[in-house]
Amino acid sequence: MGKILIKDCTIVPISGPVIAKGVIAINDDRLHYVGRADGLPAGWQADTVIEAGDMVALPGLVNAHTHAAMTLLRSYADDLPLKQWLEEKIWPREDRLEREDIYWGSKLALLEMIRSGTTTFADMYFHMDAVAEAVVESGLRASLCQGLIGLQDTSNKRLEAGISLVKEWHGAGEGRITTMLGPHAPNTCTPEYLTRVAETAAGLGVGLHIHLAETRGEVEDVKARYGATPVALVNKLGLLDLSVLAAHCVHLTTEEIAILAEKKVGVAHCPESNLKLASGVAPVKEMLAAGVNVAIGTDGAASNNNLDMVAETRTAALLAKGITGDPTVVPAHKALVMATLNGARALGLEKEIGTLEAGKKADLILVDMRQPHLMPPNDVEANLVYAARGSDVDTVIVNGKILMARGEVKTLDAEEIYAQVTKRMHKG
Amino acid sequence: MGKILIKDCTIVPISGPVIAKGVIAINDDRLHYVGRADGLPAGWQADTVIEAGDMVALPGLVNAHTHAAMTLLRSYADDLPLKQWLEEKIWPREDRLEREDIYWGSKLALLEMIRSGTTTFADMYFHMDAVAEAVVESGLRASLCQGLIGLQDTSNKRLEAGISLVKEWHGAGEGRITTMLGPHAPNTCTPEYLTRVAETAAGLGVGLHIHLAETRGEVEDVKARYGATPVALVNKLGLLDLSVLAAHCVHLTTEEIAILAEKKVGVAHCPESNLKLASGVAPVKEMLAAGVNVAIGTDGAASNNNLDMVAETRTAALLAKGITGDPTVVPAHKALVMATLNGARALGLEKEIGTLEAGKKADLILVDMRQPHLMPPNDVEANLVYAARGSDVDTVIVNGKILMARGEVKTLDAEEIYAQVTKRMHKG
Ligand SMILES: [Zn+2]
Ligand SMILES: [Zn+2]
Repeated sequence: MGKILIKDCTIVPISGPVIAKGVIAINDDRLHYVGRADGLPAGWQADTVIEAGDMVALPGLVNAHTHAAMTLLRSYADDLPLKQWLEEKIWPREDRLEREDIYWGSKLALLEMIRSGTTTFADMYFHMDAVAEAVVESGLRASLCQGLIGLQDTSNKRLEAGISLVKEWHGAGEGRITTMLGPHAPNTCTPEYLTRVAETAAGLGVGLHIHLAETRGEVEDVKARYGATPVALVNKLGLLDLSVLAAHCVHLTTEEIAILAEKKVGVAHCPESNLKLASGVAPVKEMLAAGVNVAIGTDGAASNNNLDMVAETRTAALLAKGITGDPTVVPAHKALVMATLNGARALGLEKEIGTLEAGKKADLILVDMRQPHLMPPNDVEANLVYAARGSDVDTVIVNGKILMARGEVKTLDAEEIYAQVTKRMHKG
Repeated sequence: MGKILIKDCTIVPISGPVIAKGVIAINDDRLHYVGRADGLPAGWQADTVIEAGDMVALPGLVNAHTHAAMTLLRSYADDLPLKQWLEEKIWPREDRLEREDIYWGSKLALLEMIRSGTTTFADMYFHMDAVAEAVVESGLRASLCQGLIGLQDTSNKRLEAGISLVKEWHGAGEGRITTMLGPHAPNTCTPEYLTRVAETAAGLGVGLHIHLAETRGEVEDVKARYGATPVALVNKLGLLDLSVLAAHCVHLTTEEIAILAEKKVGVAHCPESNLKLASGVAPVKEMLAAGVNVAIGTDGAASNNNLDMVAETRTAALLAKGITGDPTVVPAHKALVMATLNGARALGLEKEIGTLEAGKKADLILVDMRQPHLMPPNDVEANLVYAARGSDVDTVIVNGKILMARGEVKTLDAEEIYAQVTKRMHKG
């Protein structure tokens, strides 16, 4: 930490218009100044200066829904019917994953996320203390929760693990780690279990991270069992009175969209996973029009198969247009808002991150625009959303610490991670 | 040129199963041997050896439809209704493009394509002699045609330019350049003009490159004017008796799909452009099931906004699943076939390129798999299609010549190109 000055960059602060030839001053973990060079407070001296003439600075990307350790299952099972994919491939493999596997799979995910410009992510999996440990080492910011399946005799034990995670890790890593409880989905938890989890979360003062309305199968299942669609059901059970991060939200009624808006639910739109698993396409245009806070997530690497938020944001922007027949839906600036500020809001962190404004945490990325696919420099926001790649991210700063410079990650050892995950990929 | 040996790589030949720890021997412009190391013909000695232990070798990608020089208009106009985008932004800007602009815009496109693993592309634009010149310099392979609008008083002059291109450039650049005639679309050419172009192409012994059934507006327009849908119309006019490369094919009847299959039309599926302009989603599953040769193209950078065939192939594979609700559609291997062999076939080049087989032209790429997003090495084809990025391409060889090594393009000067296109972007 210390004082960092980023010079001569184009700034996309999200909170306001693009600033050409701007400067960013960082004091320890916070943004001290963001703006034109001539406005930099007099007498302020940096320890470290980053010359960023070819760079664009923007808030770090927020991956609003993933299962980091599933990188171990990347490209392990693809192009299969959902039931076969889950029951014959993913679940049996997950059953054999131990704590150390989760630790190394998560480290691979964190390395990949840093390299492609993600500074904060929301994660739901198991052995979450191993994930938390990896997050602390990596320097990233994360909202973590234990996935809670509420149909098995392990459901009490899982809830206890979820509570432990909150008690032991909330606020760890200089405050970079926050926690939630993670009821898996309305068709993998009973209503009684969902209510108990919600009451527990309220008692702990944390929010909920849940999968909602991902597939038609889930919707039909929930309707048949409980006589209500997924969002309506969890609303009736009182879950949405808490701060809720809901992944997917693909199959929604107009009433459910209104509920998501009214209850200020943060929706993690995961377009690539929804396409790959053939779940469908979420009604992003309708949700945005209704005032729903739509963020963007990659989901796990078994169904994507990467954790690249630059690509995911591009897909979100393109798909919303193609599916509605309206090329004006999710314009470039809106897509960037979804990938940053909306993600921050969905994780309850909008006061600290999501825009580049003095006083906020210093979580930002520098994108190197001197690339053939980003030339000529017509429009910076359109180039970022429609033409850029994760690999164009040059520098990543989280909480005022430089995690990557010139494409080189400082906090994680790539070779060690590759060796560990390769060893563990065929395990069991 | 000379003799190149690529050692110790994983080979995805497309024509057969994946080969682990394989070798590739190149003699001048052709593949001499592709297979296991122990099968390399005895006594064969290379001038250049490429150690490729972390690499995957596959046929160079074929971008089956683009307008290279439109890189000048990348991120110049986005998120607008189609009519406004074309009439207020794209056409006025194109009207001001001169030969030198086309030359430099094309060079930028070629640089971008080499960097992201494209070795062959099909291009339709104007001042095509400038494009041909850039192609010769770059070392890439291309099928070029002059775009022929047949509703204006310039239509004769354009056809003459199209004929000149064929006569002067077909076979240039050591045979890397082939040519076609390029009637723009059935709603921008009269039936008489289309017939004349087809007869001219038959006389010249070249094929046709045309836009077909891109938007609902085009289909309705053509139906209203000529009482037939676009594919049916051009079939009735005899165009499909020639070798035809048809871009888009988004809005098709079942009968039209059957015609495309029967007439062996090469379809250039451009999913990202179709999404971005909100044209719709082509019926890829149905076309493949009917036996249509579906290749992949990026379209121009004004509607994509990049020329990255790795990303485009990924989008094609994901979108086909999401839109049909069938996760088994366009599996990874099929997506790679579409991006290579089907592209070669659509350009009439399947005897020379599109697979890695001894005797074919040495057009191949090496992808560096030692990346966090490609770890662990579970399945190479799934990793290439679902997780890789254009920036993972390390080495590009066309016609036996190394155009890029370790990410560095040998044939084009990036800094000079950036300066030229930046100077020209606001022109007029
Ligand atoms: Zn999930
Ligand atoms: Zn086109």
